[in-house]
Order: sequence, then structure tokens, then C-alpha cells
Amino acid sequence: MSASTPTPDNSPPTVAPSVNALSERLVARLLDDAARLGVSITRTPGGTVIADAGVAAPGSIEAGVLIARICMGGLGRVGVRSNFDAAPLWPTMIEARTSSPVLACLGSQYAGWSLSATKEQTGGKKFFSLGSGPARALAVKEPLFAELGYRDRHERGVLVLEVDRMPPQFVIDKVLHDCGLAPDGLTLIVTPTQSVAGTVQVVARVLEVALHKTHVLGVPLDEVVEGAGSAPLPPPAPDGIQAMGRTNDAILYGGRVHLTVKHDEVARRLADSLPAANSRDYGRPFADIFTSFNFDFYQIDPALFAPAEVWVSSLESGATYHGGRIESALLQAQWGGKAAAP
Amino acid sequence: MSASTPTPDNSPPTVAPSVNALSERLVARLLDDAARLGVSITRTPGGTVIADAGVAAPGSIEAGVLIARICMGGLGRVGVRSNFDAAPLWPTMIEARTSSPVLACLGSQYAGWSLSATKEQTGGKKFFSLGSGPARALAVKEPLFAELGYRDRHERGVLVLEVDRMPPQFVIDKVLHDCGLAPDGLTLIVTPTQSVAGTVQVVARVLEVALHKTHVLGVPLDEVVEGAGSAPLPPPAPDGIQAMGRTNDAILYGGRVHLTVKHDEVARRLADSLPAANSRDYGRPFADIFTSFNFDFYQIDPALFAPAEVWVSSLESGATYHGGRIESALLQAQWGGKAAAP
Amino acid sequence: MSASTPTPDNSPPTVAPSVNALSERLVARLLDDAARLGVSITRTPGGTVIADAGVAAPGSIEAGVLIARICMGGLGRVGVRSNFDAAPLWPTMIEARTSSPVLACLGSQYAGWSLSATKEQTGGKKFFSLGSGPARALAVKEPLFAELGYRDRHERGVLVLEVDRMPPQFVIDKVLHDCGLAPDGLTLIVTPTQSVAGTVQVVARVLEVALHKTHVLGVPLDEVVEGAGSAPLPPPAPDGIQAMGRTNDAILYGGRVHLTVKHDEVARRLADSLPAANSRDYGRPFADIFTSFNFDFYQIDPALFAPAEVWVSSLESGATYHGGRIESALLQAQWGGKAAAP
Repeated sequence: MSASTPTPDNSPPTVAPSVNALSERLVARLLDDAARLGVSITRTPGGTVIADAGVAAPGSIEAGVLIARICMGGLGRVGVRSNFDAAPLWPTMIEARTSSPVLACLGSQYAGWSLSATKEQTGGKKFFSLGSGPARALAVKEPLFAELGYRDRHERGVLVLEVDRMPPQFVIDKVLHDCGLAPDGLTLIVTPTQSVAGTVQVVARVLEVALHKTHVLGVPLDEVVEGAGSAPLPPPAPDGIQAMGRTNDAILYGGRVHLTVKHDEVARRLADSLPAANSRDYGRPFADIFTSFNFDFYQIDPALFAPAEVWVSSLESGATYHGGRIESALLQAQWGGKAAAP
Repeated sequence: MSASTPTPDNSPPTVAPSVNALSERLVARLLDDAARLGVSITRTPGGTVIADAGVAAPGSIEAGVLIARICMGGLGRVGVRSNFDAAPLWPTMIEARTSSPVLACLGSQYAGWSLSATKEQTGGKKFFSLGSGPARALAVKEPLFAELGYRDRHERGVLVLEVDRMPPQFVIDKVLHDCGLAPDGLTLIVTPTQSVAGTVQVVARVLEVALHKTHVLGVPLDEVVEGAGSAPLPPPAPDGIQAMGRTNDAILYGGRVHLTVKHDEVARRLADSLPAANSRDYGRPFADIFTSFNFDFYQIDPALFAPAEVWVSSLESGATYHGGRIESALLQAQWGGKAAAP
Repeated sequence: MSASTPTPDNSPPTVAPSVNALSERLVARLLDDAARLGVSITRTPGGTVIADAGVAAPGSIEAGVLIARICMGGLGRVGVRSNFDAAPLWPTMIEARTSSPVLACLGSQYAGWSLSATKEQTGGKKFFSLGSGPARALAVKEPLFAELGYRDRHERGVLVLEVDRMPPQFVIDKVLHDCGLAPDGLTLIVTPTQSVAGTVQVVARVLEVALHKTHVLGVPLDEVVEGAGSAPLPPPAPDGIQAMGRTNDAILYGGRVHLTVKHDEVARRLADSLPAANSRDYGRPFADIFTSFNFDFYQIDPALFAPAEVWVSSLESGATYHGGRIESALLQAQWGGKAAAP
């Protein structure tokens, strides 16, 4: 600070932001506008807030966008946009974008925290949900966090549960314990797969799915410095299997991502290996694949979980590589714009 | 609140928001940024604010976007966007989107309040304008509000007048009386059809036009739970008839909406009946149609007032139906990109 | 204020906004979120803030968008957007839009202030950079400001330097002096052409380039009342010449603008004369052109610096004229999506 030419800090900034702190403003907005967004708010006796965005409450697309932004730890931009194509495959698209793709998608958005309770523990039906969003980084129950080298510390946290009923107190207590939160420091957001908001927040995972497969492929995570993804937004399907199939189809056959990575070899490899078409199971609607494996999720080739189309730019070379493509015909056959009577 | 599993409120949230309260922040922004937005602000002796967005003041596209958002009662997103198509019909598009389509479009945005004054009443020329926007819901002069079951109560209100001169005090007094507002509680925004801001706020009605025809078709309004629309944004035409024709053409021949409704039968019916092509008057530029009926608006088939293309998704079935299509050739012939000399 | 009909001010509003005041909020956000945006902040002993967005710090796309908005003096909207085209030329687009095109683009964003220092003056290597952004309007060193009739006065200012190293104190002192700022009233933002943020903020000049050529063509600047532009966003090229070539190619061969002007004759003339294709140097990648002139920038035909495609609407006639077109093949050959191995 004394030289006549200012001396910049030569190490890039490394203080990781708090995904729970960054998303607090968005959580407040979800609660403040709950009525307008079709979200029901309840509180447990201890003060934990539960936002129902699709179980008994109707939810909405706008609620889903807000929840998707919360899932990304306040580090991403998520929007629902009109497709201006003269004859579009689909009129409504989701776009997710972040300059912190690893932290936003894997450190926060990824649905990696398994939360379950037995019949004895709930005093009723057994419960299972994957937890996603910022509070995962408080609990750091997944080995992924050691690889990320990230742990959040904040006195309030928010977790999103993709499940079709309200979480039992047993599960709430487990989350509070693992996150080290007081009961009134936690907000749980519930979005069933078959709901409008649930569909939005799952399709908004188009970029996260690409980041996760990048990780599975063994690419060092600090390679990925920018990311954006888009996918068509279908309405929810009323049937659970079809609903799950539909959000997966939106990404697997309709998703497109653009990543920026550090090295050329990684860019070339990802453009080649990342697209869903690399999977042996690719080509059929997801609900058909799932059904053909007798609803055993773990029989599905993990390589299937990826966007249809991938663009990867390399900072090293400045080159951009391109692999996969949108499968318009498959999507149209599944859920696309049936012609009404002429 | 005492069970060990939190009990959600099983009834969906029903407290309707105040469209006048929600739009106050946007009105404040219009007044604060008036100089930059090309808007002139005057006040009557009683304190009523009049924002001229195109009579003597030039207005702007950005003012028009803000006015369109005010018209939707703060419940919608409106944006002007570039069309990235490699060879687009038109380079600039408007997008309007809301998770409260009935309240935003019919409870607020619809231009349903007739305001007129005789020569005697104005002390000058006779005056007529349709009023649109939030203050309609304070006055509830239209039978539509009984069907909506909605009435707003707020100590401040805002009304948009699509007219080419400033409203006379007689009309201002009528609005104040019907809305139950003190003079300094009312803001009137004036946007001529031939102005830049006026063109924006009219084309941004592409979704409202779909909602209004849905209502005319007798579909129960609580069917429609989500809505979005897009249309090309032309420059204003200097001639009044041409200007009105142009904004109508943008919607009738260039508009596309995507609605989500509750029931499959409604979705199928709307995709079939909603597009403007169902009208006997469809196919010619609106200004020609209007002229052919000797400028008698009420001779025009009401079924014409609808977007060109309609997608309707059903929550019941998860299916999406599709009807109508963008009429690129007609638009291009009317106002589209004349080639400059090569 | 005493008539019973309110009397609007018949002169359009003319109070010009302060581009330095309007951009302060955006500068504060850049500094507050610096760590997250990959930006390093240092301060000179005197308190001048230097934001490194790509020299030693990595920067980011999001930082580049914020810097582009700062460059436009807070008067524009800039966004990075996904291209939803089924088979796009390029997946990621930049959009810039303003209802104050002359003030935002020429009064602020244009890189018109030459800042240099000799070896003796720096005590090290000689330094050269063009300065762009709001502080230009405090210094008003360029003849352009007399034509604009605009001078800003504000106690704080911000300047953007497209250069690959930190500015020497000699240059900082010159900026402070010319702007009439106290040392702690100035923020300098440094964005190398070869950086991610630098690429974003240069490509976001697609509209500014059109405004500048409009001025060069001798069109009176008060003709242009609205402007928007879009262009594909490539990754930076690691080589300096290639990096400069790439951002120019994005605009010259991939840029599209839509202007609104007052008079029909101007609209027709601009649609004809503005597109880059009017230049004798048009048709080859910019880096090739630059190399062919032995890296002498001033040998390049100035008419080349323009968007590929131009739409110009006239308020006088309501007509829209169209000239030029996107050169997809050239861009694709240069930096577009190499197919990865199948």
C-alpha cells in the first residue's frame, strides 16, 4: 500500500461466499409473497418454517423460479423465458446461469442429501426425500463437500425437499442437528415432482446435471469457471413416474449447456463425453427407461443424466467444442403441442 | 400447531393482493426517473399527479415497460427482448408473464373503464378514454369485478389512459369519486396510441387479450393458473388509425401465448377456439378491417381480439394443446424491415 | 397550476441525468461482491479504488455484465442470454438496450479518452489505455462532449480501462486532475481484452459501435431516440491480437442493432450505410485485417466498425428499414462450436 504504483493482490480471491447468507433475501421474498405465489407457510412448535409449494398449496411458476434461485445459493440467475422462434419446439424455456458453477450447483443445488425416517420414527408412514440447496453445506454429510473444500457457517439455513408430503418432525430434527441450527433458524421448502413449482426447480437443474456428470467423469472441479443451461419447461405430469420422466426428458433431450473450462483437453473431452447421448439407455423417454428397469433407479446408466447438447469453451486455447443435440422429435412426441382441432 | 408433524393449512392461500399497493413502487420509479424516461409530470391544484408519457413529452420504450408493469398491478414481468433468430421476422419482442394471470390481466390491466365527458363538462372539447390498470379495482364500475370476486382497497391508486390529450378535471374528479381517493392519492398516466410508450403498453397486452377472450368464451376464470405471452414490438405509426392497427396486428398476427389451465377439456377447447384465426375478420391488417367497417369498432367480430398462436397446458392431464400460428408474411408486408438500398 | 385543466409542460424534459451518480450503485455492487465475481480490489495510498477484473484476478462473465452496465452510465440494460434456437450459431448472446442511447453510449460507454504515460512518467514501462465509462463526462477532454452538449458533475466517478496491467500512479493522477476528483472519489476498473470480463464488456458495445458510426456518418445525434443491440459472446482468445479480433468479429459479423430515429430519411440512410458490409475491409476475420495492415489500427477503414445487421425505425413515417445480415459462416469458421469426436 505504499508504492507509487498500486500493488494488486496476485492471488485470485478465495473467500468463499455463504450460500445460506446469500439466499436469505430470496427466502424472505418467498415467505413475504407466499399468498401471491400460491405457497402455504406453516411453523412447527419450535419455529421451523415449512413452505409448502405444491403439496396442499398450488404453488406457481414464479415460486419455482424463486426456489431454483434459492437452491443455487443465491449465486445464479434463473429465468422463465418465451421462445421467439417462428415455429418453436416449445414456447416456454428455463434458463440458469452462474459465474460460480461449482459452488452454486454442487455446493448447493445438487440433491445429494438423503433424508429418511422409518414408520417407527415418523409415527406414521415411512418418509424419504433427497435434500437440496444451501443447508447441505451446513451439514456437510456428503463426501462431495470434502472434494469441494467448502463448508458454510451461518445461523440460518434453507433446504429444499422434492417430495409429495410434509416432512415429519423426526426428519426436521435430524436436519436441525446436522446443520447445527436452532429450530427457528431453518426453513424447509417442499416441492413435489408433480407440482408446477417442482417442475420448474427440477428443470432449472439443467446446468447442475452437467456439473454433476463432469464430476463423475473425474474432471477436476476447479476446471469449470462459468456455466449456463437452458431447457424447455413442460407442465407437470399428474402421475409421479410420468412427472419424473418429463422433467428428466426436458434435460436429457431438450437441455443445452455452455461451460467455460480452463484447459483445452478438458473442453474437448467434456464436449465429447458429457452429452446424454453417450449413455446406452439414451433414446427412449425416461419414464419408459425407468419402467423397463422395474423402477429401480440404480439400474439406470448414470451416464444418462446429462444435458442433450453441450458447448464447452476453453480459456487455454480460446476454442469452443460442441457435442450432442436437442432431440426435438422425441420431446414433441412426448409432450409437445398436440394440434387442437383446426 | 401442536402435532409432532406440522399441519399445513389445507386450503390454498386466498388473500388477494392489492394491485394498487403492489404497483406503488413502480409508480414511484416512473415519477423519480421521469426526466430520463421522457415523461413529464404535472400536478393538479388538488395534488393529483398526471404523468404524460407521450402527449407533449416524448416518452420511451423503458417508460412503456414500466407502465405495462403498473397496468398488471405489479403482478407480472414485462420485458423488451432481442430476437436472436438468425433471420428474424422482427428484431425486438415484448414478453409478459405472470403467475396471477386473472388478477393481473382482468383485475387490473384490461382497459375496461369508459371515461367520458361532454363539451359542457370539459369546458372545451369532449373527451373519451378507456381506463386501465389498478385503480379500476378501486372503482369496480365494471360487472367483470363481480365475476372476479375482487375489489381492492388502498389509499392510493393509479390509472392508465390510452388517449392523446390530458384528461379534463371533470374526468379526474369522476375517477377520484369512484375510487374513493383523495386528490393527492391518484396518479394518472397518459399514453397515446401513437406514442412509443403507448405502443409498448398496448402490445404488452398480448396475454390480457387472451384472458379476455377466454372470459368471453365462457371459460370459468379460475381455470387459468399461469400465463405468458410474446409479440413483436413495432414503432408507433404516426397516424391514429394505423397506430391502432399496428398494435392490434402485433397481437392478432404476431402474438403467442402459453396458458396453463386446470382441466384437459378447457385446454383443448382454448387451443381450438382462442386463436384470432377463428374470426371471420381474420386475415387482413386491422386498420383495413376497421376502415371497412367505417371506423365502427362494434362492427368488428369480437373473436378477432386474440393472439395468433396459442399453447394451453392442462394440469389435469399434463397434456399441452396448440392452435393458430404466427402470420409472418402479413406482418412483414405491413411493417417489417424494408430492405434499404443494397 | 391554477387552471381547471392541468397544463402540461410543453417542452420535453431536458435535465440530463448524471452518469456517474447513476452508476454508483452498480460500482458499489462490484466492490461488495468482488470476491464472488473474481475481482480483486486494491486502493492507492490516496484512496483511489482499483478493481482488477482480469489482470491477476480471474474476473467473470457476471463481473463483465456489471462493468458493461457501469460503462453505460447506469442508463442501459445489459444481459447475457441463452439462444433458444434449435440449432444455434452460438449458444450465448449479449443484449444491450437503452432509451437514452446517445448519452449512454457516446456520453459514457465509448472508449474515447486516450490515457498514456512515458517510461519516465511511470518509472517503468510505458503505458497506454483508452478510458471508457462515466468519468469521461467529468473530464470532457474529447471534442465529442461539445457536440453532445453534456458535462457531468459529481463528487465520485468511475472509469474503465481496457488494458492488461494496472495503471501507473501518473495516469491515475491525470484522471483525478482532469475529472476534478479527490483521490478517494475515483474508481478505476481494469479489464484486459484477453479476459472473460473484458470480452463481455467489449461485445456489449455492439450498440455503442452503431451510435459511433452514426455520428461519423454525420447524422445529428438527437435523431436517435431508442437503441438495442445483440451479439454472440465468445470466450476470450489467449492471444492479444486474436482476442481483439474475436470481440470485433462478434460485432462486425454477429452484431444486430435496432435503432429508432426521428426522421424517415435518416432511418433509410442508416439502414443502408451503417452495416459493416459497407466497408472495403469487410469479409475477413478482424485479426487477419489487422495483421494485413501491419497492426496499424489507423489503416483500417473506419466504416468497418459497425454491426453486421441493422434495423432502423422512423417515428416520422412509422416505417422500419433493414440492412446487412449476420455472417454465420464466418463466425462459425472462426470460433464456432467445433464438433467433438462423435
